[in-house]
Amino acid sequence: MSETNRIPLSPTPRSTPKRAKERVRTDRADLDAVLDAGLVCHLGVLLGGSPVVIPTAYGRDGDMLYLHGSTGAGNMRAALAGDISVAVTLVDGIVYARSAMHFSMNYRSAVMHGRAAEVTDPDQRLHALKVMVEHSAPGAWERVRWPNKKELAATVVLALDLTEASVKMRTGGPKDDEADVVAGGVWAGVLPTRRVWDAPISSDDLEVGVEVPPEVLERAALSSAAI
Amino acid sequence: MSETNRIPLSPTPRSTPKRAKERVRTDRADLDAVLDAGLVCHLGVLLGGSPVVIPTAYGRDGDMLYLHGSTGAGNMRAALAGDISVAVTLVDGIVYARSAMHFSMNYRSAVMHGRAAEVTDPDQRLHALKVMVEHSAPGAWERVRWPNKKELAATVVLALDLTEASVKMRTGGPKDDEADVVAGGVWAGVLPTRRVWDAPISSDDLEVGVEVPPEVLERAALSSAAI
Repeated sequence: MSETNRIPLSPTPRSTPKRAKERVRTDRADLDAVLDAGLVCHLGVLLGGSPVVIPTAYGRDGDMLYLHGSTGAGNMRAALAGDISVAVTLVDGIVYARSAMHFSMNYRSAVMHGRAAEVTDPDQRLHALKVMVEHSAPGAWERVRWPNKKELAATVVLALDLTEASVKMRTGGPKDDEADVVAGGVWAGVLPTRRVWDAPISSDDLEVGVEVPPEVLERAALSSAAI
Repeated sequence: MSETNRIPLSPTPRSTPKRAKERVRTDRADLDAVLDAGLVCHLGVLLGGSPVVIPTAYGRDGDMLYLHGSTGAGNMRAALAGDISVAVTLVDGIVYARSAMHFSMNYRSAVMHGRAAEVTDPDQRLHALKVMVEHSAPGAWERVRWPNKKELAATVVLALDLTEASVKMRTGGPKDDEADVVAGGVWAGVLPTRRVWDAPISSDDLEVGVEVPPEVLERAALSSAAI
């Protein structure tokens, strides 16, 4: 574990959850684990005075969360004009309780806040794009054609420092009222859920003889393991 | 399909996507399908002048999206103080392209905007809570203890009309540049992914003789089917 992983979280009021405190994690390693396990984030920006939530890809490297978009996208301009909020959530189970209000979900979530910076240095931009490709498709960057000048010119890369973040996790069974447990007769428990990968589907226009890369096959083979 | 399902979407500028227009769906039935397939939404509110994104449970009934939270939660107060944005996203696959900038995801997403209303009528509140429980745990409401006065007094129920919404979906393989296809030698395709349910885990404190309900067993058995 690197030094940065030892930094505690939640240094500001808005990144300090006030409710369900037993679910709050304050270890930086938990933040990294949630971000590394997620596929998409939900980016919140202020647009025309109102919040707008956008699902988008991301990548993490050390203390930096990277996002990207088209130079023509209003959302990207909005993301640079003020603070943003980014959430990554993984649902691990539905918690079936004995009473309606105790139904819940087991989950892992990270919510980050802050001012994103535009990454403008060419080397850093290429690095950020690599981090994002590798997040979605580990092992792919070295196999594929890298961004050319035209593609880079059309792309905005944002970096958000991970210092202002909160992590929440819920695990385990329902927390029913004692009276409902005593009354009995109602099933209670957890229905676990997870993401699996299916067999890769080669592109229709792929020439004969190009095999599915080992890292893709390996990822598909992880289907039986929880992520 | 009900009459409401025939209403086209995207009646306002902010709910009309400007980019990747080939991914935009304008059929109301597509919105319903995305919302019904999701488990959590990401709620965007304005808090202290900045957007904050919160993962939370939801339910849909007809044209209404329901959310709930604690009366003590600042996020709930913020959600009632101005416009909100709510996104539901399902990731269906990673699109592996021949070039870095054409990597993508297959997904289904819905983004809604508007002013949420607090549901105050007792019958409507109960109905909204039923809709939310049934969304997370179909078939559970009739089996469990319903909310009591104390629980209801501690709960805020929000309703968001679904008239201002956009739906995007991406399906299919990579859309590589012709030159990269011609150059060849790089695998391209899709790695499909989906959510599965595992076997239910009964609560530690469940009394002997209470069986797992059929609808829970049935849901777990759906593991092999795409959702």
